[in-house]
Amino acid sequence: MGEARFSGVFAPIPTPFGEDGEIAYGALRDNLARWARTRLAGLVVLGSNGEFPLLDQDEKEALVGFVREHFPADRPVIAGTGCESTRATIRFTRRAAELGADAALVLNPHYYKGAMTEEALRRFYLDVAEASPIPIMIYNMPGNTGLNLPARLVLSLAEHPNIVGIKDSSGNIVQISEILAGAPPGFAVFAGSGSFLLPTVIMGGVGGTLAVANVMPDECADIVTLARAGRLEEARAIQLRILAANAAVTSRWGIAGLKAALDMIGYYGGPPRPPILPLDEGARAELRTILVRAGALPASGER
Amino acid sequence: MGEARFSGVFAPIPTPFGEDGEIAYGALRDNLARWARTRLAGLVVLGSNGEFPLLDQDEKEALVGFVREHFPADRPVIAGTGCESTRATIRFTRRAAELGADAALVLNPHYYKGAMTEEALRRFYLDVAEASPIPIMIYNMPGNTGLNLPARLVLSLAEHPNIVGIKDSSGNIVQISEILAGAPPGFAVFAGSGSFLLPTVIMGGVGGTLAVANVMPDECADIVTLARAGRLEEARAIQLRILAANAAVTSRWGIAGLKAALDMIGYYGGPPRPPILPLDEGARAELRTILVRAGALPASGER
Amino acid sequence: MGEARFSGVFAPIPTPFGEDGEIAYGALRDNLARWARTRLAGLVVLGSNGEFPLLDQDEKEALVGFVREHFPADRPVIAGTGCESTRATIRFTRRAAELGADAALVLNPHYYKGAMTEEALRRFYLDVAEASPIPIMIYNMPGNTGLNLPARLVLSLAEHPNIVGIKDSSGNIVQISEILAGAPPGFAVFAGSGSFLLPTVIMGGVGGTLAVANVMPDECADIVTLARAGRLEEARAIQLRILAANAAVTSRWGIAGLKAALDMIGYYGGPPRPPILPLDEGARAELRTILVRAGALPASGER
Amino acid sequence: MGEARFSGVFAPIPTPFGEDGEIAYGALRDNLARWARTRLAGLVVLGSNGEFPLLDQDEKEALVGFVREHFPADRPVIAGTGCESTRATIRFTRRAAELGADAALVLNPHYYKGAMTEEALRRFYLDVAEASPIPIMIYNMPGNTGLNLPARLVLSLAEHPNIVGIKDSSGNIVQISEILAGAPPGFAVFAGSGSFLLPTVIMGGVGGTLAVANVMPDECADIVTLARAGRLEEARAIQLRILAANAAVTSRWGIAGLKAALDMIGYYGGPPRPPILPLDEGARAELRTILVRAGALPASGER
Repeated sequence: MGEARFSGVFAPIPTPFGEDGEIAYGALRDNLARWARTRLAGLVVLGSNGEFPLLDQDEKEALVGFVREHFPADRPVIAGTGCESTRATIRFTRRAAELGADAALVLNPHYYKGAMTEEALRRFYLDVAEASPIPIMIYNMPGNTGLNLPARLVLSLAEHPNIVGIKDSSGNIVQISEILAGAPPGFAVFAGSGSFLLPTVIMGGVGGTLAVANVMPDECADIVTLARAGRLEEARAIQLRILAANAAVTSRWGIAGLKAALDMIGYYGGPPRPPILPLDEGARAELRTILVRAGALPASGER
Repeated sequence: MGEARFSGVFAPIPTPFGEDGEIAYGALRDNLARWARTRLAGLVVLGSNGEFPLLDQDEKEALVGFVREHFPADRPVIAGTGCESTRATIRFTRRAAELGADAALVLNPHYYKGAMTEEALRRFYLDVAEASPIPIMIYNMPGNTGLNLPARLVLSLAEHPNIVGIKDSSGNIVQISEILAGAPPGFAVFAGSGSFLLPTVIMGGVGGTLAVANVMPDECADIVTLARAGRLEEARAIQLRILAANAAVTSRWGIAGLKAALDMIGYYGGPPRPPILPLDEGARAELRTILVRAGALPASGER
Repeated sequence: MGEARFSGVFAPIPTPFGEDGEIAYGALRDNLARWARTRLAGLVVLGSNGEFPLLDQDEKEALVGFVREHFPADRPVIAGTGCESTRATIRFTRRAAELGADAALVLNPHYYKGAMTEEALRRFYLDVAEASPIPIMIYNMPGNTGLNLPARLVLSLAEHPNIVGIKDSSGNIVQISEILAGAPPGFAVFAGSGSFLLPTVIMGGVGGTLAVANVMPDECADIVTLARAGRLEEARAIQLRILAANAAVTSRWGIAGLKAALDMIGYYGGPPRPPILPLDEGARAELRTILVRAGALPASGER
Repeated sequence: MGEARFSGVFAPIPTPFGEDGEIAYGALRDNLARWARTRLAGLVVLGSNGEFPLLDQDEKEALVGFVREHFPADRPVIAGTGCESTRATIRFTRRAAELGADAALVLNPHYYKGAMTEEALRRFYLDVAEASPIPIMIYNMPGNTGLNLPARLVLSLAEHPNIVGIKDSSGNIVQISEILAGAPPGFAVFAGSGSFLLPTVIMGGVGGTLAVANVMPDECADIVTLARAGRLEEARAIQLRILAANAAVTSRWGIAGLKAALDMIGYYGGPPRPPILPLDEGARAELRTILVRAGALPASGER
């Protein structure tokens, strides 16, 4: 059943760029090999952390194939395939399926905010779900899109057999609870950020796809495992410990913070693609302190 | 210690008005007697649900005294005393103490949004805490005030010995977690709405002050008790069951919904004070259905 | 007719406080005498700049009487009388009329944002207009209230014979235009801030009630006069010149900035009432530079 | 000089699609021929009204070339070339120049809202301006992007010789005034919507690029001409008359409304591309009434 395949902690991986601004496939392969040695359930390629809007279409397709090929076949790779138009989303979702993606994480169109009524969004997701050969996960990311997908809409979409879950990055635990209260069994609800992973799992969520899971994958996986085992005190302790590190790679410094953190812990982070600016020196020093406190880096800060 | 006195579930009671628009003290006495027979830890008088901005100053003072007098002395009564000016807040907090209030729930000034910098708000709360003979609880209610009190500010205030806790109605579980991660031991964090009571308690909160606790007091108390006992499945089941009822008396229909619900379950609700409009018939029918589903009313709907 | 009495530029005067925190009536009398020598059409007492939410009820009543008494009888004094409850608003509006106020500027209730539907707000304003012996002006101040009064609501209220105008502080020139396109003849639309005075007048507004009019009354009056005379270039030059000074006493530094500016130009400003903090030294220096550039202070900065 | 070429009223044309969902070039050619017979100063292709985010890259390039080719050479065609990445924006801007575009209207990147600091946006625009063989116009569209470009940033960019103007769709007349107060001579400020065209021109703007200019081009052009001639009453009368029609094709029904309006007045509108839904019958009837009232359709509604 669905939960077997899509549950636990997924890392929405960043796209590594070299000094020349092109995708650094060697570095990516090395990163993938390291993530494969963690307790991550799977990966998301072309999520928001993957800088997908900054990539050309051919880069996006190449990345899906490459990541699927270089990550253990028994662990799912989910591809972000949402575009502004329905037809481009369908086209790319089908292509991602051909390239081996196990599911598609579909961000809602959002540029034409006024036109994206519940009816328009419902139509969009149903059209994509009908046309897709792989399962669809809804991606709610109001911080970037400026639109929230309300529980009522999500619950109506959850009835479709090819819409298998949602990554909700709203951080709105009430909305997440409302989805969990009303969704059919097996509908997978993922926390969209590490800062509310434990509350989501406590309310019935299956896991999370979390920027911070790139940096602290096992700690994130442990929160889910401990919560399921009823070891709440331990789960809470980890959850509280990673809050600042999570903020550093999301709300506070975003992708630039995530890439800098990866560099610090020995993965390849590298520069973001312009117009995103890299972290300046002051922020890097502060980030290092945060990572040490979170236990992601030894106190010496040396590796 | 503090937690003994300020923990568990508090009901922020509505102010009953008669047909003549004046406070209906007889009805209030009867309501208080019924709440006293529940597992509520205490009450809040003059919270947002108490229509405090619609009351005259003499009404507010009379209410604090009356509620304290007619509720069991071993259960705390917390009075809402926040005003826009520092001096009026101090004056009323002292008066509430004289009238027997066990603590003051202090809403932040918010009309001059641009002027309410973190420094201004910090100064406000410290001045009030210094001057108050009773403990101060911070009241964060961004939905009504249009201002959020960020975790950093709350944590700085939590250092003051006379600031003993916060009612956070933001619904932002990340912010609540950040407060819990950084606050000194004994600082009491209350969920400000029934929709995120369990997540708050799971993260370390001591309880909630919840509109829905007026209507379903024992169910709310049970969530806290079960969560503390590690009986998560049961706690979650209640939490998910009360979501719609909670929304009905808060985000959806507010005080008008709360008063109508009280009327339906046999308490006195009565009309809100203008400009708040009472619930129309269609909404009442829908509310009745929601209360039946939540288990707050028998299916027949008759009482 | 109405326009004869309520048009042109009004200053919403600040409330002066002494070192002891009480209202400084002597300073107020001196200020009033100076404003009386300008081309201001009238004054607003107890507007947002008057710190009305920080005043006690007896202070508010005393201020209305005092200002009316000490300002030329042929120029209107408008009193801010909006409260959260309908009955308190009616009571105070009637009292303001007894005290000599020529009209009431009525801010909408806003604490219970969810309950303040168009229907509730319409009911509120109609009830107040029916009960008031003096004309009512609507006061739309979304920056402080967190609620906007849409054009449709305003136009429905404009039909009432005792609702004679609006002070719109939204800065939304489209909304102001929609009101002007649909309102009955004689309905007076005032710009609520000096930054959009000329556009408002160009679209058909009768003037403004402007914080900056406390500091640069004649310049503001000139914008209206020049615009009416078709001398657009000159009006625009003044409008562009006062933008930064207007921002300094509104969006940027608010009441603290306004009071500091008054001190600099020789009126009495004095301290704001806590929790509003006074301007710090750095901001004062910057404010002085802005006033010099706007022509409100001689370049030497000495007075 | 710049103003000679980039001033007056521009229509940001919609992209016509046939029943098969592909670009209907024949219909587009006919539309272009009709717009050429109006007093429009020029056109914008691939603006928000052009559904640019819903087009494939090859479609976008083909459109730029086609529109330039089929519109009178003495009237400028401005191409929307903004992409999320700096490099894609530069690449497409250069390509648009090759295809004959007279200027590029560059929307700011906006998906990574947290990362789009003033510094990042400044860098983005300067990099594009440096690399572009044609003049750059800034495009501020907060309603769709969720980000506003503040006056300070715009003024800093206005110093660059290849950044020649801004289309500001914020509707914030204060911000527009601040830009006009501080920009170097010749920096062209365009209203981004027909609802604030006259106020913008009065404050010193050179014209507008307006959805409603597709439907009522000569009325829009007249507002500018009359305002420049000091015939304010007439300009205001037209401005007030077109407000509802403007809202119908922008804030209210967006592109679906614009296309339906074009169908009604005898141009080709056709269906929007999914996920945008076409206007339903009720809305069409209401739109027709609005167009009649605005004078865009004869009262019979027949053509």
